[in-house]
Amino acid sequence: MTAPTLGNNVVTQVGLIVRDIESKARAWSEILGLPMPDIIITDIMDKAHTEYNGRPTPARAKLAFFHMGQLDVELIEPIDGPSTWKDQLDGHGESLHHIAFEIKGMDEKADILNSQGVPLIQRGDYDGGRYAYFDGAARLGTILELLENDD
Amino acid sequence: MTAPTLGNNVVTQVGLIVRDIESKARAWSEILGLPMPDIIITDIMDKAHTEYNGRPTPARAKLAFFHMGQLDVELIEPIDGPSTWKDQLDGHGESLHHIAFEIKGMDEKADILNSQGVPLIQRGDYDGGRYAYFDGAARLGTILELLENDD
Repeated sequence: MTAPTLGNNVVTQVGLIVRDIESKARAWSEILGLPMPDIIITDIMDKAHTEYNGRPTPARAKLAFFHMGQLDVELIEPIDGPSTWKDQLDGHGESLHHIAFEIKGMDEKADILNSQGVPLIQRGDYDGGRYAYFDGAARLGTILELLENDD
Repeated sequence: MTAPTLGNNVVTQVGLIVRDIESKARAWSEILGLPMPDIIITDIMDKAHTEYNGRPTPARAKLAFFHMGQLDVELIEPIDGPSTWKDQLDGHGESLHHIAFEIKGMDEKADILNSQGVPLIQRGDYDGGRYAYFDGAARLGTILELLENDD
């Protein structure tokens, strides 16, 4: 018998790193016939408390979300760095970056993943919640994101 | 007003290229608390009619599917080549490869994507259906897969 470690096994987001979010979002909208989303920008460091590899970073990103059933496809254009977003764009170009799960109890869930060889690499806050990326490259083959919304 | 070009906008699969599917599937099962899936192998060329860049290819793959809400996370270990699977493993290592949609009318949907600068790169058959990958790297930032099941 198995039970989902994260409390659920529902992928709520797939993240895609892009170089120019305006043109890419327009292409997604036009080619797939989806409403054009707003493009937002993550908060500044003082508000987002962004940390990468354990240190504060001024990195930000432009984001656009396409609602596609149970999940969003999230377009991410890195601004400055260092960040996992910029590392992937520099190393691999435009490419899929992560799958995300909505969870409750970020610290507890982070401890579980860290203890399994899937270490925290980046975290930050947004209005009403927080996110954390975990480097699953070695054990899982991809980055995981956990999202915790207050409500 | 927009309408989904593919008939729906529901992502049914996220594909992940891996080097050793047995160890990666075990890690997904253990770390995320998911049932260990069977590992299957795609059909031989004579049955799958696999084509890559317009030419028949003997490439195959080992596959494992984790059911995660509306979608499956599909682990893919390339066997031989040439294929889009092997190209990505050789070029980028283990990494997310595609998002997939279930559609009806493969030829019509393929024409639409081709005409939008998202060209067919690989196709093949499986028991009860067929798949096709489209290279959305330039316009969308990732590969799309269309799946058509007979029923």
